[in-house]
Amino acid sequence: MTRGPYTVHLPGLPERVTIYEVGPRDGLQNEKAVVPLDVKVEFLARLAEAGLTTIEATSFVHPKWVPQLADADELLARMKPVPGVRYPVLVPNERGLDRALDRGVTEIAIFGSATETFAQRNLNRSIAGSIEMFAPVVERALKAGMRVRAYLSMCFGDPWEGPTPIEQVVAVGRELLELGCYELSLGDTIGVGTPGHVAALIAAFEERGVEAERLAVHFHDTYGQALANTLAALRCGVTVVDASAGGIGGCPYAESATGNLATEDLVWMLHGLGIETGVDLGSLARTSLWLAERLGRPSPSRVVQALA
Amino acid sequence: MTRGPYTVHLPGLPERVTIYEVGPRDGLQNEKAVVPLDVKVEFLARLAEAGLTTIEATSFVHPKWVPQLADADELLARMKPVPGVRYPVLVPNERGLDRALDRGVTEIAIFGSATETFAQRNLNRSIAGSIEMFAPVVERALKAGMRVRAYLSMCFGDPWEGPTPIEQVVAVGRELLELGCYELSLGDTIGVGTPGHVAALIAAFEERGVEAERLAVHFHDTYGQALANTLAALRCGVTVVDASAGGIGGCPYAESATGNLATEDLVWMLHGLGIETGVDLGSLARTSLWLAERLGRPSPSRVVQALA
Repeated sequence: MTRGPYTVHLPGLPERVTIYEVGPRDGLQNEKAVVPLDVKVEFLARLAEAGLTTIEATSFVHPKWVPQLADADELLARMKPVPGVRYPVLVPNERGLDRALDRGVTEIAIFGSATETFAQRNLNRSIAGSIEMFAPVVERALKAGMRVRAYLSMCFGDPWEGPTPIEQVVAVGRELLELGCYELSLGDTIGVGTPGHVAALIAAFEERGVEAERLAVHFHDTYGQALANTLAALRCGVTVVDASAGGIGGCPYAESATGNLATEDLVWMLHGLGIETGVDLGSLARTSLWLAERLGRPSPSRVVQALA
Repeated sequence: MTRGPYTVHLPGLPERVTIYEVGPRDGLQNEKAVVPLDVKVEFLARLAEAGLTTIEATSFVHPKWVPQLADADELLARMKPVPGVRYPVLVPNERGLDRALDRGVTEIAIFGSATETFAQRNLNRSIAGSIEMFAPVVERALKAGMRVRAYLSMCFGDPWEGPTPIEQVVAVGRELLELGCYELSLGDTIGVGTPGHVAALIAAFEERGVEAERLAVHFHDTYGQALANTLAALRCGVTVVDASAGGIGGCPYAESATGNLATEDLVWMLHGLGIETGVDLGSLARTSLWLAERLGRPSPSRVVQALA
């Protein structure tokens, strides 16, 4: 049985893609099981060993909201950073930034919403209020020499408002970038998007002066669309793709075991297309199998299941 | 929660796609459980009710090889064909054709291999020998007024030979079409293909005079690539896509629960792209949930899981 894809190039795609690995943060925060600190430390080490170079390590969100990541401080104290690997940390507000500064974090991510309802539910304020909240976070982070990434969630639809108007996504996304974020990650938090929607959204950003090089995509595989949507985004010039090792992280807004796009499924496609990632697929799949045992449920990644 | 995708067109895709539903044949023949005849009859009725218009009903393969479909004769006697719906039946050889003629079947499919090893293992002869075997089947079927479809399996790779040379796939595929088959379904039997490989294969057929309108694609989701590959095929002008309701049918060559591309996951993408299929997604997903209960395992379809 083959252990990896055969390579046949497709014209018009990038030569190299950066995988922004979100398993330790977006994956684990949406798993029911709270993973022991030792396992998290080993998970981070294994991901770097497998060749991932951008790994979101954890989040400084209040433990009341995300008990799964309550050990963020200990994790950062205990983990051994690998030279050349970036370990951004999600920071929800100024208090989170203070913790990140205390820990010597050099890269953070903020997490905005493209819809009013999700802004209220997740951030307890309006979209405008959330931008006001982020402004001093980004300003202080940049002054401290940090890089700041912005996530924008619910870019395709949300469970309350239906489809998110493209012009609304572009408007909020530009505000986040104008704060000084180096990159905007377009999140399909509930996984409803399809390839035409992806292409239209990226085109709308470009029409408003935001080039595809400043955009990343963050797809959830709730409806099985994540990889097809990624292909559409690559064709539009996007070169940064968020994914979660083993596809960990259930969807918080659907009764589905499927969360983030699995890094392995992404790597299979990228390597098949001859696109470099730097990732060793076998090593990564072994890591996801190892973690699945600790999580007590099989990996939802097709590749991990097939290579098991 | 949304019950279907939002529609945003993507330029360059077909307006309408014909889904060739293979669940009752390719799905059920690869499930461990042997499904009772009553359930099969109801499954066929429900698929037509959901709007599918091409449903491969069963196979006249010898029961020794596929006990799951040993009831093919009774099934065809018992089922109630819906006007306007085509019910092709797989026919492996002349004896199978005799049974199809006895039953008044008007459309059959033959099943060839693009690789020598799989031809030997599955058909017990060489590729050339298999074409010789199929020639009188197709000839007699056409004389009887039947339409004949050809499947070509292992078009991307096989478990023994590695990647299948594209020129070999084109050569064998053309021979099957030249027998008189109206359509050639390109099968990625082990699910290893990626979008560049798909585009290159279709382009190679076109270079040798076979237009995309005569090609269908048949992807297995073993490595999660099926939908991205389908998107690549649609961009090349393919308008017929094989899929299996609920994604039933494990992969016979990998220890994976994942078999055919799930019809629901396909429909979600197609409807999101504004491509007509005639399928009612909710009705189809309810059918797959109903069948999953009878199969005793959850549907591997992401959409079915999320809508459950």
